[in-house]
Amino acid sequence: MDKIIDITELALRDAHQSLIATRLGIEDMTGICEELDNAGYWSIECWGGATFDSCIRYLNEDPWERLRTFKKLMPKTKLQMLLRGQNLLGYRHYQDEVVERFVDKSAENGMDVYRIFDALNDLRNLETSIKAVKKAGKHAQGTISYTVSPIHTTALFVDQAKRLQDMGVDSICIKDMAALIKPQPAYDLVKGIKEACPGLRVQLHAHSTTGVTLVSLMKAIEAGVDCVDTAVSSMSLGPGHNPTESLIEMLEGTGYTTKVDLDRVLKAKLYFSKTLGRYKQFLSAVTGVETEIFKSQIPGGMLSNLESQLNQQGAGDRLTEVLEEVPRVRKDTGYVPLVTPSSQIVGTQAVLNVLMGKYKVLTGEFADIMLGYYGASPGDKNMEIVAKAQDHAKKEPITCRPADLLDPEWAKLRAEAEALEGNDGSDEDVLTYAMFPQVAAKFFATRAEGPMNLGKDPEEGAVDAATAAEHQGKIT
Amino acid sequence: MDKIIDITELALRDAHQSLIATRLGIEDMTGICEELDNAGYWSIECWGGATFDSCIRYLNEDPWERLRTFKKLMPKTKLQMLLRGQNLLGYRHYQDEVVERFVDKSAENGMDVYRIFDALNDLRNLETSIKAVKKAGKHAQGTISYTVSPIHTTALFVDQAKRLQDMGVDSICIKDMAALIKPQPAYDLVKGIKEACPGLRVQLHAHSTTGVTLVSLMKAIEAGVDCVDTAVSSMSLGPGHNPTESLIEMLEGTGYTTKVDLDRVLKAKLYFSKTLGRYKQFLSAVTGVETEIFKSQIPGGMLSNLESQLNQQGAGDRLTEVLEEVPRVRKDTGYVPLVTPSSQIVGTQAVLNVLMGKYKVLTGEFADIMLGYYGASPGDKNMEIVAKAQDHAKKEPITCRPADLLDPEWAKLRAEAEALEGNDGSDEDVLTYAMFPQVAAKFFATRAEGPMNLGKDPEEGAVDAATAAEHQGKIT
Ligand SMILES: [Co+2]
Ligand SMILES: [Co+2]
Repeated sequence: MDKIIDITELALRDAHQSLIATRLGIEDMTGICEELDNAGYWSIECWGGATFDSCIRYLNEDPWERLRTFKKLMPKTKLQMLLRGQNLLGYRHYQDEVVERFVDKSAENGMDVYRIFDALNDLRNLETSIKAVKKAGKHAQGTISYTVSPIHTTALFVDQAKRLQDMGVDSICIKDMAALIKPQPAYDLVKGIKEACPGLRVQLHAHSTTGVTLVSLMKAIEAGVDCVDTAVSSMSLGPGHNPTESLIEMLEGTGYTTKVDLDRVLKAKLYFSKTLGRYKQFLSAVTGVETEIFKSQIPGGMLSNLESQLNQQGAGDRLTEVLEEVPRVRKDTGYVPLVTPSSQIVGTQAVLNVLMGKYKVLTGEFADIMLGYYGASPGDKNMEIVAKAQDHAKKEPITCRPADLLDPEWAKLRAEAEALEGNDGSDEDVLTYAMFPQVAAKFFATRAEGPMNLGKDPEEGAVDAATAAEHQGKIT
Repeated sequence: MDKIIDITELALRDAHQSLIATRLGIEDMTGICEELDNAGYWSIECWGGATFDSCIRYLNEDPWERLRTFKKLMPKTKLQMLLRGQNLLGYRHYQDEVVERFVDKSAENGMDVYRIFDALNDLRNLETSIKAVKKAGKHAQGTISYTVSPIHTTALFVDQAKRLQDMGVDSICIKDMAALIKPQPAYDLVKGIKEACPGLRVQLHAHSTTGVTLVSLMKAIEAGVDCVDTAVSSMSLGPGHNPTESLIEMLEGTGYTTKVDLDRVLKAKLYFSKTLGRYKQFLSAVTGVETEIFKSQIPGGMLSNLESQLNQQGAGDRLTEVLEEVPRVRKDTGYVPLVTPSSQIVGTQAVLNVLMGKYKVLTGEFADIMLGYYGASPGDKNMEIVAKAQDHAKKEPITCRPADLLDPEWAKLRAEAEALEGNDGSDEDVLTYAMFPQVAAKFFATRAEGPMNLGKDPEEGAVDAATAAEHQGKIT
């Protein structure tokens, strides 16, 4: 009997986040939900990440309504989301009650599997959400943000998985947002976790940017991985993920198989290949493979962000210097993984270092990373820069869990949200406001006009690489 | 000590044949030859296949001069070509002396490694060229045209490899032009050949169309393959091949490594990414992965050919019927592999069957396949259709090697060639004429005007998918 390898389908979340800057509107997804729901996926990722922000910022679409729509159209398959631990889907730490209420409300609206990560791999930032997910009776997936550095050994990641198991997660996700995980390290890491954490389910999420990660998925499967992430082929590759169809086909004769119905996936391929033509203006400029990432550690989305920042300063010619500065800045932070939001924070600081002189100017966010306000760094920080950050931000470094410093804020958030035009008084609206205060205010006021669709007739939707680059850079 | 895996670089031949319909002009290659020559490849494929035809048909470029240019610019690395056995680079069988003279002249002009294949895997069609290559002191690579059918077992291919070894080849190539070779079959086949043919070097050539073959390369490496084919990343993927950089990177930590210098490959990446923008009008419409090939057995280039044939007949709506007919026609031929020229012959017959009624009309080429004039088929033919072919073509079926029926023809070819305006009297010109009589006549007359370059400024070179599709369909 072949061993079943489960699949999480990414077409409805990470795939379009990676390929067309998270612009896919709900009406370009509803038509294929029934096929996807019947295809036999272990789960369908369809919410969280940058989709919430994109819904209210660009699409005039209520993200909670989107979730309810998915639940109605896909009742058979577990819906999955990406959650940034104590940051939820926003960019600051929230007090525990807000995290708990977010988990409760999303579970109530239909969410089943929560992939919970922290940009720094500070597991204290996952505790509250893991507990809340377990309390809601849902699947809590503890995440390792995969990165490569002198301190990020297999042993370190395996230890992290053990600690997540102790925290009660239902599964582990190795999350490789920059396509850095090579076949042998993938094998070693999965093997290590399976041996150290008997009975713990392991899943591998890898982007395809460097071209090697389908091989890594194969090796992870040989090492005992239970589930892998892929995207329907017409929504795959480049900065996205490996094609679902290729994953299914490649297993023939290996002793592994999937339960996913290829014919339904091929229907979804056709559906999305038509859809994607309407979003050309947002298409990623990256389409082939970029192995330079192995050297620079800079994910594709971050690269386009850096280019765009430099161009805005009329300093496009200094990209090479910035690319060389990024690893140095990252080392000073104690080798934080480069994923939203640390990728932006490290990248912007590297730009400033090159343009203004090394650490002459510090962003508030960079100072916060150095002072522990995002959590503990994986390795030792450069204490000289910590001192500069302290000086700059007029704050003391902290070692506690950042959210421990926060006072209860739910009542205040509710009051502020309710004061906004168009707010409907629901907890969902309070949460939307909590995560994106300015954008939410504007969204509540225009919500009644209904979703906008940014797709264009393929003929008129000319490729505007500059526009596309600006809108990218959310790396998850 | 890591085992060294050799690499054959395809950027200068199969990559642009697959991606931009073989249109790359010599002046878009010379600038990177030095880097490629110093990169540490086992060989650089740069001649043969459809390049000869394309040179004289579209580029007004002397293919023999192209070969001499490559030899001058890449003196350190073995140059490699693809040779269609007794067909040389043309579309009929040549008498042995012509084959011998072609091999001698190409060796004299700089060719080192001859990858020799036959569309039907009839090894008698490889004999003369293999002997000639050995006599010239060059590397003879015997090729297995990989295909999938009820009769094409691992054992059958291994037996073919053994017979090639007995014929004195220096190495074996498993040639997977349609990206059909999955990881486990790749492992089994390489293992089988290595065990059955001790000491014989094995190389794997696989296209990337279905998205699975980088994994197959990994498995082939684990099974003992000596050399793999890849193309610089900016000239890779889609109907092309796996990226050289990804192959190099993916081996880290596996116990295998390459001798290829990644920095030089990255320079070539940049070079070709600029070049390719100038050939947009010829760009393949296929860019992602197409796993449908596993079902239909129809390679990507053949598919676009069929679409174009049907559209010319105003019958574009009957593609699905044709796609279903192709496997039936192929079965009737005794499961010939689908590669140039059998792919075109089977495809055209399938179109006729759908449009005119089943085998109501037969092309001359299809009749010839059924009657053995291309060689022996791998399996049993449908004898009813053989009878029809006999009736149609007024010819008897044959079982001998097709070239055995040919009379000496060199003197006649020389006389005909010399009568043409612009012919320079060389053996090379006789060979050019022998392979493409009409096109050569026109080319000799205009040769003095020098090479044309079909590249265009990226701004004006708008994508014309229809044009591109017409020029594709050479599947090697
Ligand atoms: Co991701
Ligand atoms: Co080929």
